[in-house]
Amino acid sequence: MLNEVKGLNEECGVFGVWGAKNANYLTYLGLHSLQHRGQEGAGIVTNDNGKLNSYRNLGLLTQVFYKPSLLESLKGDSAIGHVRYSTAGSNKIENVQPLLFDFTDQQFALAHNGNLTNALTLKKELEQKGDIFKSSSDSEVLMHLIRHSDKPTEIERIKESLNQIKGGFAYLMLTPDSLILALDSHGFRPLSIGRLPEGGYVVASETCALDAVEAEFIRDIKPGELTIINDEGITVDAWTTDTKMAICSMEYIYFARPDSNILGINVHTARKHMGKILAREQPVDADIVVGVPNSSLSAASGYAEGIDLPYEMGLIKNQYMGREFIQPSQELREKAVRQKLAAVKGVVDGKRVVLVDDSIVRGTTCAFIVKLLKDAGATEVHLRIASPQFKYPSFYGIDIQDRKELIAAHKSNEEMRQQFGADSLEFLSQEGLIEAIGLKYDAPYSGLDLSYFNGDYPTPLYDYEKNLSEDF
Amino acid sequence: MLNEVKGLNEECGVFGVWGAKNANYLTYLGLHSLQHRGQEGAGIVTNDNGKLNSYRNLGLLTQVFYKPSLLESLKGDSAIGHVRYSTAGSNKIENVQPLLFDFTDQQFALAHNGNLTNALTLKKELEQKGDIFKSSSDSEVLMHLIRHSDKPTEIERIKESLNQIKGGFAYLMLTPDSLILALDSHGFRPLSIGRLPEGGYVVASETCALDAVEAEFIRDIKPGELTIINDEGITVDAWTTDTKMAICSMEYIYFARPDSNILGINVHTARKHMGKILAREQPVDADIVVGVPNSSLSAASGYAEGIDLPYEMGLIKNQYMGREFIQPSQELREKAVRQKLAAVKGVVDGKRVVLVDDSIVRGTTCAFIVKLLKDAGATEVHLRIASPQFKYPSFYGIDIQDRKELIAAHKSNEEMRQQFGADSLEFLSQEGLIEAIGLKYDAPYSGLDLSYFNGDYPTPLYDYEKNLSEDF
Amino acid sequence: MLNEVKGLNEECGVFGVWGAKNANYLTYLGLHSLQHRGQEGAGIVTNDNGKLNSYRNLGLLTQVFYKPSLLESLKGDSAIGHVRYSTAGSNKIENVQPLLFDFTDQQFALAHNGNLTNALTLKKELEQKGDIFKSSSDSEVLMHLIRHSDKPTEIERIKESLNQIKGGFAYLMLTPDSLILALDSHGFRPLSIGRLPEGGYVVASETCALDAVEAEFIRDIKPGELTIINDEGITVDAWTTDTKMAICSMEYIYFARPDSNILGINVHTARKHMGKILAREQPVDADIVVGVPNSSLSAASGYAEGIDLPYEMGLIKNQYMGREFIQPSQELREKAVRQKLAAVKGVVDGKRVVLVDDSIVRGTTCAFIVKLLKDAGATEVHLRIASPQFKYPSFYGIDIQDRKELIAAHKSNEEMRQQFGADSLEFLSQEGLIEAIGLKYDAPYSGLDLSYFNGDYPTPLYDYEKNLSEDF
Amino acid sequence: MLNEVKGLNEECGVFGVWGAKNANYLTYLGLHSLQHRGQEGAGIVTNDNGKLNSYRNLGLLTQVFYKPSLLESLKGDSAIGHVRYSTAGSNKIENVQPLLFDFTDQQFALAHNGNLTNALTLKKELEQKGDIFKSSSDSEVLMHLIRHSDKPTEIERIKESLNQIKGGFAYLMLTPDSLILALDSHGFRPLSIGRLPEGGYVVASETCALDAVEAEFIRDIKPGELTIINDEGITVDAWTTDTKMAICSMEYIYFARPDSNILGINVHTARKHMGKILAREQPVDADIVVGVPNSSLSAASGYAEGIDLPYEMGLIKNQYMGREFIQPSQELREKAVRQKLAAVKGVVDGKRVVLVDDSIVRGTTCAFIVKLLKDAGATEVHLRIASPQFKYPSFYGIDIQDRKELIAAHKSNEEMRQQFGADSLEFLSQEGLIEAIGLKYDAPYSGLDLSYFNGDYPTPLYDYEKNLSEDF
Repeated sequence: MLNEVKGLNEECGVFGVWGAKNANYLTYLGLHSLQHRGQEGAGIVTNDNGKLNSYRNLGLLTQVFYKPSLLESLKGDSAIGHVRYSTAGSNKIENVQPLLFDFTDQQFALAHNGNLTNALTLKKELEQKGDIFKSSSDSEVLMHLIRHSDKPTEIERIKESLNQIKGGFAYLMLTPDSLILALDSHGFRPLSIGRLPEGGYVVASETCALDAVEAEFIRDIKPGELTIINDEGITVDAWTTDTKMAICSMEYIYFARPDSNILGINVHTARKHMGKILAREQPVDADIVVGVPNSSLSAASGYAEGIDLPYEMGLIKNQYMGREFIQPSQELREKAVRQKLAAVKGVVDGKRVVLVDDSIVRGTTCAFIVKLLKDAGATEVHLRIASPQFKYPSFYGIDIQDRKELIAAHKSNEEMRQQFGADSLEFLSQEGLIEAIGLKYDAPYSGLDLSYFNGDYPTPLYDYEKNLSEDF
Repeated sequence: MLNEVKGLNEECGVFGVWGAKNANYLTYLGLHSLQHRGQEGAGIVTNDNGKLNSYRNLGLLTQVFYKPSLLESLKGDSAIGHVRYSTAGSNKIENVQPLLFDFTDQQFALAHNGNLTNALTLKKELEQKGDIFKSSSDSEVLMHLIRHSDKPTEIERIKESLNQIKGGFAYLMLTPDSLILALDSHGFRPLSIGRLPEGGYVVASETCALDAVEAEFIRDIKPGELTIINDEGITVDAWTTDTKMAICSMEYIYFARPDSNILGINVHTARKHMGKILAREQPVDADIVVGVPNSSLSAASGYAEGIDLPYEMGLIKNQYMGREFIQPSQELREKAVRQKLAAVKGVVDGKRVVLVDDSIVRGTTCAFIVKLLKDAGATEVHLRIASPQFKYPSFYGIDIQDRKELIAAHKSNEEMRQQFGADSLEFLSQEGLIEAIGLKYDAPYSGLDLSYFNGDYPTPLYDYEKNLSEDF
Repeated sequence: MLNEVKGLNEECGVFGVWGAKNANYLTYLGLHSLQHRGQEGAGIVTNDNGKLNSYRNLGLLTQVFYKPSLLESLKGDSAIGHVRYSTAGSNKIENVQPLLFDFTDQQFALAHNGNLTNALTLKKELEQKGDIFKSSSDSEVLMHLIRHSDKPTEIERIKESLNQIKGGFAYLMLTPDSLILALDSHGFRPLSIGRLPEGGYVVASETCALDAVEAEFIRDIKPGELTIINDEGITVDAWTTDTKMAICSMEYIYFARPDSNILGINVHTARKHMGKILAREQPVDADIVVGVPNSSLSAASGYAEGIDLPYEMGLIKNQYMGREFIQPSQELREKAVRQKLAAVKGVVDGKRVVLVDDSIVRGTTCAFIVKLLKDAGATEVHLRIASPQFKYPSFYGIDIQDRKELIAAHKSNEEMRQQFGADSLEFLSQEGLIEAIGLKYDAPYSGLDLSYFNGDYPTPLYDYEKNLSEDF
Repeated sequence: MLNEVKGLNEECGVFGVWGAKNANYLTYLGLHSLQHRGQEGAGIVTNDNGKLNSYRNLGLLTQVFYKPSLLESLKGDSAIGHVRYSTAGSNKIENVQPLLFDFTDQQFALAHNGNLTNALTLKKELEQKGDIFKSSSDSEVLMHLIRHSDKPTEIERIKESLNQIKGGFAYLMLTPDSLILALDSHGFRPLSIGRLPEGGYVVASETCALDAVEAEFIRDIKPGELTIINDEGITVDAWTTDTKMAICSMEYIYFARPDSNILGINVHTARKHMGKILAREQPVDADIVVGVPNSSLSAASGYAEGIDLPYEMGLIKNQYMGREFIQPSQELREKAVRQKLAAVKGVVDGKRVVLVDDSIVRGTTCAFIVKLLKDAGATEVHLRIASPQFKYPSFYGIDIQDRKELIAAHKSNEEMRQQFGADSLEFLSQEGLIEAIGLKYDAPYSGLDLSYFNGDYPTPLYDYEKNLSEDF
């Protein structure tokens, strides 16, 4: 899946540090390894002996921190950081996180991965009370609830507030004296905690960020958990006990980095299993197996092993493609698109190709890739998708909230096959996906959120109920 | 092989267009797909109805042409372009190509991929005559020779001059009325010509650049060939008939893009063969096969197929790593290095790993990668190199001219193995390499330049003879 | 007065447009001519058929809008804009104005020139109610008050809120259907309204911005006035009738551009009168009169005319001095300072010089300038200041809130003269200043705020009372 | 005269240092004070113990050296630097000076202020010998001549070469062991030498640059002089004795900074005299005198004193105007022009104004400025030009080589007056100009080049003879 084209985007990655020298640079490293989770904005808040300092801006992490002095000015030994994807309309500096609040009596920073399903309702209620929101993101609602809470302690205020918000969230909160982590009651988004060899704790959306700072993995944060890290150590509490694991299956299928482990399952390995099971479920008589780089390479190699065909590099992704690329006039547009992805003629010419993709969301690039392979001489292109048909929008932190955009919601396999110009098109079954990931929770679908594929949302949708209608 | 670390660098890529609208943008696309051949500078010269216009600067192509107006100002229907790698000392704007010469009576532009072995001698002779060089690159010498030639026609002057220069070169020359291509007498560097569907010709260092503009491959330029393209079509001439094919083997092993074909051989396929033959020559009892991304993935998958072990993504390259990355203080240096490459714990933990790399030049990263895998739980790491021991410097266009830097020139396999911390270390044989590439020329080593491995240089070395001494 | 050194800074300039095509560009032009009022940040909000759009950033206007597309994206036929000076500590993007509030039911933008004296008290009260502030500037308080107001109409809510804030303010507010202007009850800050030749209205901190868009001056906004401009025209209302004119005298002395008229008085002319009256009050036997460029040139030419001595260009300001200037190591620091200002040896050598400066605040550059002149050969330097001794801080919109920094608050004339190395030092009297400006209001000091010089603040100081103590 | 509009541009400023620590930073300071002489490009070459290092680029000095490391990398205790104006067509990095030549046996750098009148002829001759030019500037010719010379010593080779070039030149040459200065035989361009208080010598186009580094003025370089500065001190030699002083009168009138002294005459003082004598020659009955900022302010104050009228700031130049200013669509063009210059209504309204400008070249802004004043209420505008009618192009280093562009070459005073909409228009006489400057050389026009006004060129024009024809 080419994310630049397909437009399925994770909304965030979060990273936190407590009790370590160079918290600024550790956070920079951690966020750098989470960059795939959001490329639109980045920021870091550090705690310098009780004074919180912030820097954030639009762009990639290395663009935001384009000179060392910006990072160096963020002193302190604890920090939280955020990388953000944002929808076009709200690509504003105001929405880049972490959000830092400078109250006259306190400072408080938060970073959020996920999406609240009742944010709009809460926001309207709060505005009725005179509240003013500084961002258009849903993440800020939590801060307002905390400030309105009458509970005597900050932790109680936070707990009360977490019980009012719905949807998917992994929150990092930084105060002058602690780093606080909260996960929603279904654990939609991953969040793991580790220990630095030099002392101190780190927390991250993916374990690849723990590795990036050479931290030792301790454990995954559990649904409903509220964890406080401060100079006395780690305190594990819960804001709710009404929990049921439903981790986002798309993390395994597409979002996460292959070297991350989610709930103990390695992502590359899960993808390879998806490919292998897909080969078992949907075999085809062909010469070679090719994956769409980079996210489908694991599944493709699994398919190749499963069906015992050569796994070949039939498509090349240009590693120098970036936003700075000058878009051409209309007549040259197709040539420019070919800059992103090239077929390897010497590999596919005269061959019957199994093309493995991790998923189909809008389906806008499939026809292009099939044509690329056929133009390069492939005699047949059999499309195999290593996940089920993506038919339902997401409301827990992925940027696709509109059924109209989802091709599988509206077209049959055969209609899609024709549109893509493929010789065959098959998908992994839901059972195959569950088997491939191999989670063993006593929860629906073994603890996975498969609502993308079956519409079985683990929670009420509140403000988003309407988005499921056919008109959306 | 991690090129940022190992420092083996191609010195250039060239691209040319004749007779096509949007020559500027076509050249931009072509150079973009050749960016892997040089990241230090880029430039384009276009021919606007007989007036040559130029823009060039230091940096990546997209950094040089950071705004559309820079590209749009280069009007015309023919062009040449260049991407350049340069050694640290000469990283100056003056050396960025194409070089455009504004004589009072003529304009002349040239772009050069390769390295001349008698440039210094010629330069001194020319300075004796009062000549002044505008760049410190060797490429400019040809222009001076042409201007000093007494021959009556330009083509004769060019031929006479080409007979005076030695070494490796693929020259593109642009004048107000023609595009001229010249290849050295051994064809050290690849150069291919294609035809645009909309009419007009393109020429490029690699066929991937022909594909990038949807041009149809016509043929490879031959050693000693001088080709003139103008409004009357293509005229194939020769500046010498004393030729012997000796294409650079490192193009197949490391430099070229996997989707390019060189002399009819697909690069990915050749690499996969190298891996397969290496598996046959140097098998090992292990659990999984892992390649160093990205250049060794083809060879690794070949090795896996050859030995019938699973091919796994045991190492991940961070695609967001760039020059803007802020380097940390010394104490965090090792963590920063881990940003470039990460081991996939979930894959390698508890496994005996065959680690396939395409080549070892300086050997500076091998120990790091082996440690990365062992830290991630690999119980054994068997290093397999898909090319022979790299013992001799290069003088035909690759930036490594000093024997002292070449680890295999000074250490035995066993010494290297110990230094790297690997459980075993083996290389592909020279015969295996020849077989894998599969060229069938009636020339030494089937038409390959293998001097990197055997010191058998196809030409005298002139100014560089001394570099072969032990002190260098 | 060299503003880069002395650090007396206006905090803002505001500009608004209603009912004109190209509101974005008109605002850009208007703000450009107000750039002297604030160089730290700039922003524009436009109203595009009821949808408010915003862009703002740190830096000069031309740096913020560094490419045309940023301006072009702000469509609409009404707009407000802001240029901002900010104290070092709060130089954050969050504080750059206009502030745009996206409520779920409404959008509202505001831009503020001035300073509220009870902002901290109000902010604490509002936070008690759960309010959260997005900026650390005082300007945002008004929005919160408006949202908390129970009044039935927006205008009534605004009026009620204006009655709660104290200090100096000129507010521009933009809603989907109107542009609203409010001035404090003393008219501390100037605000004028004009009519565009092509139709539509503009409002600006200074009349030079009306001229910049070729608007015809209509009138100055009055203390306590609330003016609503919408498609039905201009409605002049008042939020209070308890008003007393006290326009900031430093606008005439230093801040405003010489081509602006404030309350009908031309600024250059007022300054020239200050110089003339100073010559009458404090004559001196000398050869030439020199002004400190650029702000003191008017006063210097007035002094020269008054005393009938030649007015000479004895000091030159380098017009290329900017922030990008590389600061040298310590040993070269004094040479670098000389880049800003140079003495004209050929003019001052052997001469007795009257050096006219508009004011002395911290006094940090006086000694440097006197030395510059003496090094250039001046035999005597008589310092004449075209305003009284600046002894009291400002709380109505000028960035100097600390008595300790004010040299005249702590030193006698003779002490200052010695410190500066001048041969004599005299100031304009308060009566002379009043006469020079020539306002004729039936108010203390003829309608001028002279608190800088006499400590007679027109309002209670609320949160700033403590700043008047000797310790501050 | 608004230089952005009128387009009369000095082509360069040069600065050199010998024998001083921080030669890089001293050169930076010196060039910064010469920035008014050229804003298109800047560069510095330093001599670091015999190794010459260079950095140069397009843009203002502070844009070229946009980060300290660029300056810091230029180590050494001698240096030459250059700021450049360039005509549109040749605004290329190749032409930015100093030019540094890296011969295989030597390094040599040169910086040139002026223009050679036989450069094209020499260039063609040299190209016949096979020479290749790296720049399109005339400055490079000297280097080629030196390299072709057969003389035994470098100084003799330089002398022989200087005798072959014609026109106006002030050359700074830097070699590993000396700094060499050469001035043409008429001294068209100023060049002065000074001594640093900390030891070492500096040389600069204007004395303001000596002041900028606190150097003590020693003397002006004489026509035909060749000066060698090295570790043994200063050696004054001559490359010709056939000399006759003819310093460019436009240096006094417009180009030089007011604080510079040229041949002992202060520029501001000379301009004030021009204004005074103009008042004597061309008085007018009026109310106030206004100068066009900034270059005409000295002359205007002289006129005011001469005729005993008030000198007023009737026009304001916006100090924030820069290249980054976004140009508007056509309909708003006139408003944007007003950003550069504004009339002070409060000053000129109802007044009869004498508008003093230093010179009229193309005359493109005069009508605009007259209209500006009349729109602001001036009842009469009497234009007084503090130099004679500019009728002849320049070939010694000023960028105006085409008679067609010169309004006074084609129109009578009355025709110009009508075109500008002025109530009267008068110029300073040639005799008045000579008297105002007050040079006392035994040479035509007292040692001034007045060819702009009278066509009496001190030298043959060689390649430019044709430019004097009516068609040009």
